[in-house]
Amino acid sequence: MLILKLSCPDQHGIVAKIANYIASHNGNLLEFNQFTNTFDSKFFARLEIDTADIDVEINSFITGFNVLGEALKAEWHFRHSPFKLRTVILVTKTTHCLNEILWRTSESDLPLEITSIIGNRDHCQAIAEKEGIPFHHIDMDGDQKNDGFQQIAQILRDEEVQLGILARFMQILPNWFCDEFSGKLINIHHSFLPAFIGANPYRQAYNRGVKLIGATCHYVTADLDAGPIIEQEVKRVLHSHSPQDLMRLGRDCERSALARGIRYHAYDRTIIDGNRAIVFED
Amino acid sequence: MLILKLSCPDQHGIVAKIANYIASHNGNLLEFNQFTNTFDSKFFARLEIDTADIDVEINSFITGFNVLGEALKAEWHFRHSPFKLRTVILVTKTTHCLNEILWRTSESDLPLEITSIIGNRDHCQAIAEKEGIPFHHIDMDGDQKNDGFQQIAQILRDEEVQLGILARFMQILPNWFCDEFSGKLINIHHSFLPAFIGANPYRQAYNRGVKLIGATCHYVTADLDAGPIIEQEVKRVLHSHSPQDLMRLGRDCERSALARGIRYHAYDRTIIDGNRAIVFED
Amino acid sequence: MLILKLSCPDQHGIVAKIANYIASHNGNLLEFNQFTNTFDSKFFARLEIDTADIDVEINSFITGFNVLGEALKAEWHFRHSPFKLRTVILVTKTTHCLNEILWRTSESDLPLEITSIIGNRDHCQAIAEKEGIPFHHIDMDGDQKNDGFQQIAQILRDEEVQLGILARFMQILPNWFCDEFSGKLINIHHSFLPAFIGANPYRQAYNRGVKLIGATCHYVTADLDAGPIIEQEVKRVLHSHSPQDLMRLGRDCERSALARGIRYHAYDRTIIDGNRAIVFED
Amino acid sequence: MLILKLSCPDQHGIVAKIANYIASHNGNLLEFNQFTNTFDSKFFARLEIDTADIDVEINSFITGFNVLGEALKAEWHFRHSPFKLRTVILVTKTTHCLNEILWRTSESDLPLEITSIIGNRDHCQAIAEKEGIPFHHIDMDGDQKNDGFQQIAQILRDEEVQLGILARFMQILPNWFCDEFSGKLINIHHSFLPAFIGANPYRQAYNRGVKLIGATCHYVTADLDAGPIIEQEVKRVLHSHSPQDLMRLGRDCERSALARGIRYHAYDRTIIDGNRAIVFED
Repeated sequence: MLILKLSCPDQHGIVAKIANYIASHNGNLLEFNQFTNTFDSKFFARLEIDTADIDVEINSFITGFNVLGEALKAEWHFRHSPFKLRTVILVTKTTHCLNEILWRTSESDLPLEITSIIGNRDHCQAIAEKEGIPFHHIDMDGDQKNDGFQQIAQILRDEEVQLGILARFMQILPNWFCDEFSGKLINIHHSFLPAFIGANPYRQAYNRGVKLIGATCHYVTADLDAGPIIEQEVKRVLHSHSPQDLMRLGRDCERSALARGIRYHAYDRTIIDGNRAIVFED
Repeated sequence: MLILKLSCPDQHGIVAKIANYIASHNGNLLEFNQFTNTFDSKFFARLEIDTADIDVEINSFITGFNVLGEALKAEWHFRHSPFKLRTVILVTKTTHCLNEILWRTSESDLPLEITSIIGNRDHCQAIAEKEGIPFHHIDMDGDQKNDGFQQIAQILRDEEVQLGILARFMQILPNWFCDEFSGKLINIHHSFLPAFIGANPYRQAYNRGVKLIGATCHYVTADLDAGPIIEQEVKRVLHSHSPQDLMRLGRDCERSALARGIRYHAYDRTIIDGNRAIVFED
Repeated sequence: MLILKLSCPDQHGIVAKIANYIASHNGNLLEFNQFTNTFDSKFFARLEIDTADIDVEINSFITGFNVLGEALKAEWHFRHSPFKLRTVILVTKTTHCLNEILWRTSESDLPLEITSIIGNRDHCQAIAEKEGIPFHHIDMDGDQKNDGFQQIAQILRDEEVQLGILARFMQILPNWFCDEFSGKLINIHHSFLPAFIGANPYRQAYNRGVKLIGATCHYVTADLDAGPIIEQEVKRVLHSHSPQDLMRLGRDCERSALARGIRYHAYDRTIIDGNRAIVFED
Repeated sequence: MLILKLSCPDQHGIVAKIANYIASHNGNLLEFNQFTNTFDSKFFARLEIDTADIDVEINSFITGFNVLGEALKAEWHFRHSPFKLRTVILVTKTTHCLNEILWRTSESDLPLEITSIIGNRDHCQAIAEKEGIPFHHIDMDGDQKNDGFQQIAQILRDEEVQLGILARFMQILPNWFCDEFSGKLINIHHSFLPAFIGANPYRQAYNRGVKLIGATCHYVTADLDAGPIIEQEVKRVLHSHSPQDLMRLGRDCERSALARGIRYHAYDRTIIDGNRAIVFED
């Protein structure tokens, strides 16, 4: 099975051209989700293609698409399924998001191959070791910060990482890092963005007396907390909840928003469109 | 704009054929949702087609599709947009579902033209009159039941009704009636089906001590409460809620499940597949 | 039945004192919700008291509580049940919140007696007339604004209004007005506060690409959009939703958040505590 | 801090008597939730009592309550806080509920001391060993079943277990076992009860085409799947979801409903009332 995602300027006949290419090689469409943003005439699509009866090598089929893709001025991506994304998880102290990802990976809910866990603290080292995953403790305090990010970048390069997950990684990323790994970094923010940007969102939420708190999973961009949103989750707050209760409920929001966000990304259900993310939900 | 929904046995190249037909007449696809059920090899699709630049009369475009549709052994349906569905609402005593539909229709949330309201009681007559919609009070008690359904059927025929909404219509429909208007009747059931089938679902729910209650919007079939489900909605129940509170919360579930169900049906987002309904959500 | 809500500085034995007073007159407690905020040592409670067997006149029972209430340095309020709150609804153009309140009032979901509807536009006049409720069209454009609020205040005074509902009333209230009717004005804000404060929240939400939109029901204070939050509601957003779709979904959020907020207020389930609202949910 | 939960036949003055007892020993009420079921005149309450200033030994305070408790013909329970419930987890093959409980216990979200994990299969043994918790593999196939339950009962007795969690334990419990540990066994059922009782609920749900699936956390009684419901959770189903997807979504429902149910039970927020459970939510 192949997943194809594609975006391009809209014009008449795009679906026909894509579908013809697939049919001409005897592929079969299992799922076709297409959406045209008529505000700015952009075409977005995600296809699942059954390749069992295809009449060429898969790789020829993929490279053969180049002619059409370029003619459409498209950006596109094919993914063989089943697959596992080479993934690094970045953490600081808290373990709930890390545990959620590890558990879902072991259950095959998330198609990840976790090559390393990196922490600027060593609180998660024991968990990594239990799972037999290499743990890199990279101290980033004070003026070690830039060196630290250089080390992290080198690990991501060496391990040919396809996805970096910031699982409550409490460091602000330098611009060059965001740029180099653009579209490959997913963060979980512990508030319902754009509310409560910045530090201590649960305390802010308590003080404001909100009745719902949330978490936001988004792509990382140089503009902190402003990257394209992939998924959000909320929980109800009662007046009897202390800031600690909000943190507890918030952890559940974070776990589920992050897990769904990673899943959408991994199965190529997301297409970044400026500071918005198209998400073909499942 | 045209909406096309279509289902047929799966085969290779269906999307290409459909898209080619559209492109060949210079139509432009705005949204294409397709899904293949690989369990029984059935193909389902819903398309939104921008017809601004189309090179033939719309009706020729529609009838021209017959050749392809028949070749695919498909069932399909085109709908011009904007449109209003000719609709009759059937009621008994309660007004909340009726009011919801009337309000959403007046707000253009629902694309309906309500030609009549029919009640086997006269409780809703005043509401109909306020809105200037004809109200038919058809008594169906005892042996007047069959006559009553004959009268209702005649109204549906005379008014060339495209949709009949059972908005808490507390009568069991005869089989011949379900058959004649198959696929055109939508009911709201006051429980989260398949739980609490039958009478007094809120009392049943109270007695069972459930923590969530719900409502179910479904197509009407001769098999009571077993028709294809279009939409469901639940609300949280507290221990302090009496059966009356459950009815109150249930009314909210009914209103929103029914409204969304009607919307999905009206915009051709539903395809009946045996006793399941495919719903291309929005 | 009596509802008592009370807040005071915490001290030992408050519940005993209150319960003793009730028991000493043979009242029976049906529901007692109490909560102590240990951060700032404040005591909050809401009681439902069955007065069927009470041994004095209800009014003597209520005035007799003064001694204890003052000794506790409390703020408190008794409400006879059943009751209807004398209510004025303020509107501009949109009708969905107004319709929701009218329908719920007619269904006895909301215990309101709506004495007037006031509009700075006349779009809702026809609805008011259908329901037989006086409609006051008060133009507030330009320099008529202050006069307008003087007229509104006079209506609220003359009709001895207990609750003013801003049902999408698109005017910023002057401070004197907020002060005079403090704790008696409820607003529905068309965003999930504190996100998207200010104009055009649905457009802001669309531009930011959020995956959930919401509405917020809050008490009105002079600090715009910052009053104590009573209730919030969210709905899921898809990438295919236009700003118009967000407005449509938002209307549903507004209707349900406002209806629940009014219900909590009317049944004395809310206690304002600075810029937070304690809500004893049901 | 002490938690007191209590139920008894209703009469006037119960709250006063309880609060007087607490105040007479200089205890301070932090939270008092009380509810009277007027259908059958039963009184239910849960109290959180700050014992910092109490003027007797805690145990004297607790035993001193006996006189009042018996006079009220009450059932009641005091719990010192903080505390950890001695807990055994029963499993078969699947790991998601087990992992959820272990993680939440390690995060102090759940106040449990897990003394043993018991499996009628050995699939979860590795997880138990990683956590350093004793694992008992007790084969229960065929005629070993009764012996198996005798062994389990002996473990529960030996370890003075306060809570047994059936974390997807796929065995029907004998009546004597349910009776002996009545009120101490919590199960997670993989459907939204009372829908889809019996085997393969996800397949049943798929076939029925429901739009929401769920899970139910309940106390175990001899009447299978009919015990008092503590918590329920639902997730939305799309037409594209296969039965496998329903199982995946269902796992998330199970994890969260079970975790919340255990939390309510552990913090004495539940009172069993026939086949219903009163739940003082937080």
